Amino acid sequence: MKAAVLFGKRDIRFEERSVPKPGADQVQIKVGKVGVCGSDVHYYKEGKIGDFVVKEPIVLGHEFSGVVSAVGSAVSKVKEGDRVVVEPGFPCGTCDICLSGRYNVCRKVDFFGSPPIDGAFQEYVIAPERFVFPIPDEMSLEEGAFVEPTAVAVHSVNRGQVGLGDVALVIGAGPIGLLTMQAAYGAGASKVFISDFDKDRLKAARSLGATEALDASMGTVRQVMGLTEGRGVDVVLEAVGAEETLNEAIDAAGPAGRVVAIGLSPETTLRFNFFEFMKKELDILGVWRYRWAYPPAIALLASKRVRVEPMVTHRFGLEQVEEALLTCAEMRGKPIKVVVSVGD
Amino acid sequence: MKAAVLFGKRDIRFEERSVPKPGADQVQIKVGKVGVCGSDVHYYKEGKIGDFVVKEPIVLGHEFSGVVSAVGSAVSKVKEGDRVVVEPGFPCGTCDICLSGRYNVCRKVDFFGSPPIDGAFQEYVIAPERFVFPIPDEMSLEEGAFVEPTAVAVHSVNRGQVGLGDVALVIGAGPIGLLTMQAAYGAGASKVFISDFDKDRLKAARSLGATEALDASMGTVRQVMGLTEGRGVDVVLEAVGAEETLNEAIDAAGPAGRVVAIGLSPETTLRFNFFEFMKKELDILGVWRYRWAYPPAIALLASKRVRVEPMVTHRFGLEQVEEALLTCAEMRGKPIKVVVSVGD
Amino acid sequence: MKAAVLFGKRDIRFEERSVPKPGADQVQIKVGKVGVCGSDVHYYKEGKIGDFVVKEPIVLGHEFSGVVSAVGSAVSKVKEGDRVVVEPGFPCGTCDICLSGRYNVCRKVDFFGSPPIDGAFQEYVIAPERFVFPIPDEMSLEEGAFVEPTAVAVHSVNRGQVGLGDVALVIGAGPIGLLTMQAAYGAGASKVFISDFDKDRLKAARSLGATEALDASMGTVRQVMGLTEGRGVDVVLEAVGAEETLNEAIDAAGPAGRVVAIGLSPETTLRFNFFEFMKKELDILGVWRYRWAYPPAIALLASKRVRVEPMVTHRFGLEQVEEALLTCAEMRGKPIKVVVSVGD
Amino acid sequence: MKAAVLFGKRDIRFEERSVPKPGADQVQIKVGKVGVCGSDVHYYKEGKIGDFVVKEPIVLGHEFSGVVSAVGSAVSKVKEGDRVVVEPGFPCGTCDICLSGRYNVCRKVDFFGSPPIDGAFQEYVIAPERFVFPIPDEMSLEEGAFVEPTAVAVHSVNRGQVGLGDVALVIGAGPIGLLTMQAAYGAGASKVFISDFDKDRLKAARSLGATEALDASMGTVRQVMGLTEGRGVDVVLEAVGAEETLNEAIDAAGPAGRVVAIGLSPETTLRFNFFEFMKKELDILGVWRYRWAYPPAIALLASKRVRVEPMVTHRFGLEQVEEALLTCAEMRGKPIKVVVSVGD
Repeated sequence: MKAAVLFGKRDIRFEERSVPKPGADQVQIKVGKVGVCGSDVHYYKEGKIGDFVVKEPIVLGHEFSGVVSAVGSAVSKVKEGDRVVVEPGFPCGTCDICLSGRYNVCRKVDFFGSPPIDGAFQEYVIAPERFVFPIPDEMSLEEGAFVEPTAVAVHSVNRGQVGLGDVALVIGAGPIGLLTMQAAYGAGASKVFISDFDKDRLKAARSLGATEALDASMGTVRQVMGLTEGRGVDVVLEAVGAEETLNEAIDAAGPAGRVVAIGLSPETTLRFNFFEFMKKELDILGVWRYRWAYPPAIALLASKRVRVEPMVTHRFGLEQVEEALLTCAEMRGKPIKVVVSVGD
Repeated sequence: MKAAVLFGKRDIRFEERSVPKPGADQVQIKVGKVGVCGSDVHYYKEGKIGDFVVKEPIVLGHEFSGVVSAVGSAVSKVKEGDRVVVEPGFPCGTCDICLSGRYNVCRKVDFFGSPPIDGAFQEYVIAPERFVFPIPDEMSLEEGAFVEPTAVAVHSVNRGQVGLGDVALVIGAGPIGLLTMQAAYGAGASKVFISDFDKDRLKAARSLGATEALDASMGTVRQVMGLTEGRGVDVVLEAVGAEETLNEAIDAAGPAGRVVAIGLSPETTLRFNFFEFMKKELDILGVWRYRWAYPPAIALLASKRVRVEPMVTHRFGLEQVEEALLTCAEMRGKPIKVVVSVGD
Repeated sequence: MKAAVLFGKRDIRFEERSVPKPGADQVQIKVGKVGVCGSDVHYYKEGKIGDFVVKEPIVLGHEFSGVVSAVGSAVSKVKEGDRVVVEPGFPCGTCDICLSGRYNVCRKVDFFGSPPIDGAFQEYVIAPERFVFPIPDEMSLEEGAFVEPTAVAVHSVNRGQVGLGDVALVIGAGPIGLLTMQAAYGAGASKVFISDFDKDRLKAARSLGATEALDASMGTVRQVMGLTEGRGVDVVLEAVGAEETLNEAIDAAGPAGRVVAIGLSPETTLRFNFFEFMKKELDILGVWRYRWAYPPAIALLASKRVRVEPMVTHRFGLEQVEEALLTCAEMRGKPIKVVVSVGD
Repeated sequence: MKAAVLFGKRDIRFEERSVPKPGADQVQIKVGKVGVCGSDVHYYKEGKIGDFVVKEPIVLGHEFSGVVSAVGSAVSKVKEGDRVVVEPGFPCGTCDICLSGRYNVCRKVDFFGSPPIDGAFQEYVIAPERFVFPIPDEMSLEEGAFVEPTAVAVHSVNRGQVGLGDVALVIGAGPIGLLTMQAAYGAGASKVFISDFDKDRLKAARSLGATEALDASMGTVRQVMGLTEGRGVDVVLEAVGAEETLNEAIDAAGPAGRVVAIGLSPETTLRFNFFEFMKKELDILGVWRYRWAYPPAIALLASKRVRVEPMVTHRFGLEQVEEALLTCAEMRGKPIKVVVSVGD
């Protein structure tokens, strides 16, 4: 089978590899569609994300769907031919963090397409049965490739305890922002504002149901205060990860508000408005991947409460993986989401 | 003005009264539509609910909308001509319960249409500005009369912490059950089953989006277990208040599930399956009216995430209040919701 | 080695068995002290608890401490000679319930001394490393035998969210009640009342720091209302499991209060005051064993925030297991806690 | 009566004023002891804290106890001669923030000794009955002056959800740090480490029960990792408010840990390690004063679970208020807590 392997910064080479066989409790999956994630792009451009460094050749790609092509002897949850997605982080399952229910921060988690585990830019992958989830007939394989980022959106909304009647602000209308906006609405928010500098992204936001899509160049905080009679919002979902937007989040939150930090900054440290944070007694809540978010994410997509079509701006084949990564890395043609078709 | 006054069991008489004037921080409202609630019917039939007893003549009715006809000198939130609803319970606002955020169980709450406070089956009412909420243009006065029971639904869903991906069961497809079903879906539930014996109510449930509307005569618990591969549901919203349905709720909940008791039983005591409750380590959570649920309820109705048309089976004028109450009390013509038009 | 085996109702026989060898990730423990639990007594007297039925001969006993006598090749947490306790329930660790953090209600949990898993009334036992916890030098093996019931107390206090300044009532001053009273105080309760009919138990409660130890024959609810100026308590920890005491719990709770059901009733169903429960919008919270409660329980005992000496009324050797069980079953000599010395 | 009035930076003058009379629901209190708080010192030295600026002459002092000297006609909770403390922030009580239970961030709160409301460095003060709390006989007036900072400690511990078995780190062994350390222990923490550079403060910490009092010059994070086998702590209570200590808090927290920001920085903005915060998915939780913390604080002090004697390093009379403030401002004689005796 063919695999697209990253050997170092901006160095992807194709290799022929033998198709891996599933162990007793494993599932072999013929990869269908793979979304390109910002972290794939960081690894491709910089060879690392924070202290996660690419040291050995690695196959990227963790937002994917596919079709079961073989199952191990002990597998009962899925069978050959089932259309599936894979939760790509495998925690140890036995430490106190895992068993207390926050397995996403397990110290020993293995993650698809993050060193040293190979990902989905190859024709076949193996995954443990426990992390394989069937998708319903009404969901396309392309929609399936959105389950992973939708899980980030679900977990972010859960971290922010978004509930009935909440007024929310999403900062950043990239893929995660657009999914989080819809998940916040799906969790009961009565109003979800979203801001971005890019007009096409704001247009996508409007088509996906934003209460207001705000041009960030006009001042996100100022506009939000106008829309809330100066009260600020109940929860801010910060999907950019920059110093400026983190501070906008703090400024736009009302008293006792929650700020959910979803976007990861390329900077290691950020300066924030501490007094404003304290005076309003905010919560700033980190997000690291997700936990228990795959079933809700699948349900949101299957019911079309989360829609993705307006987000797919570019499609490539497996041979064009590098072009797909460059499209994101260099923002060629204003991409929102880029999808790689590995199988069909 | 005309007022429909309850003098005792099944004894309603019309009186001419002078129109009440608003105090400085009060609002005078010309009553529009009033929904008939189960508690109105209990007061009408039995003269009491639990230890709340009708001792003096009283005007019933607390699910209502109307139009502001005059405001006190200090009122700024609404003005003459605004279409509004009123949160009908007025807590003391100064006790530890109020200030700790659970004002619905304040020991000194006054409640519209509950002894000794007169309700909305009369042409004009007075309410404190703080409890008056404007409704948006896209909401009719009849929909406005559903804000109060929708607030019960919202609070029930909040008590049960319904969130993204939860599988829920609503027992009872009366007005509260049908609203709660929709509110549960609005709060992110991926599936909401509902059960009832009545075929018309099940039909209404289906038209309002139930994942499955279950014929209770076929066994609610058995059907739910079939639909969940024997796992049970995450949360049961019990909207009947009978011993049998409370026990169905306990049986249908999965391990660590939540049972929200919404329906009030005419019986003071109920027998329940204690060992089943313990073995699954359930939460049984009472519901007493609502708190902070009016804005979310208005938002759910305004956005049509909660719809009400299929529920209005009967409409009467103010002169027909007793007929409206009898329609419910004696289940004449299979009523779901009965609405009284006091104004227009 | 010697094992005390229950063959049926009131039928314990001693057997010579070979000492079990630990697997790679297992620990062999020479049993020290074993507390007699109410569930041991139910199995002894009635051959079952609810739907857990003794069908094969079984060794009872799950509240125990001991000394490591051998370890498997992969064990690193403890070594020969370490004094330890064992969390006696082993959940599957892979289902959604386990990984979402509520492993105590896992559908596949195995439990020491509950059919079909043998318990600690024998000289040696085997346990998985993960569930073995060292105890500190300052804790005696007899105190170690109290870690398990203290874990119940910890979990009950966690379920009731007892925090700084809460006023609590514990109903029942048996071993679980006395431990829960201390755990509630350890979690920050400002006042912990406890009630019982037995004067010796009330005396023990006073010596262990009860704010007030109430003679239940004088009316628990009446006394609690007197002590709280009619407000009721924030949380009731019901450690009896009878219909009467569950209703006392509901009556003694203040508005928005929590009732934690700890005691298991021999009756399958109980009748409770539903209207009172609803009117105050209470939470009734089940307790099934415990989760993540061993480290806190060990810490409470090691720091003497939970003390146990006044509770040990009877001590027996392994040969006297049946006498120990009968002491509890027939309440011979007013037992509070009966401890069996298997080793030293 | 005599009042110590701040006219501007480092400008305190004594004035003769008439004794204020209580309104119907107010209490007149003869001031006893007043603790000097960091915010008093900021106002004294800099004339402001963040955007709270002293524009008119003001009497500082809000950590105080006293004796009721007169009561308004409607007051029933206390009577002349009662020893009391006053919760010094008075929220509006009617806004949505107040009624949803987070009144400490009410937009309209008035605060004793914060512009424009006069505080307790004067012989008599007036307070609304609702915010006056009697203290028990076993508590001295000097201990009473510690109720306010103990309320900060209680609220901080509540914000961090400190519970049974938690391992906590307190950064900074000043008055708030020492009280928070004890409150964390009182809320069930099994271990509470505390760090500071000052040897006398570490000595006080040890005498007040610190599990370990760490010399910050040896590296707080390094020592904490050694004490926790590299796991980090469950919750960090940051009682300094500097950039360096905020980052220590982030580094010392374990995965899914909570960082409670208690100390207020004189800097408006701080730079923090964003990637570390995200990777461990931490919560950073602001603290603004307290809510519902007076009764727990009184209970902790009355029961000696929180002790204060080792903290009082200096005592002054009312005439020496400026010396008291300078003692703190210039750290004369290594003060921990400075108490001003206004009455007796």
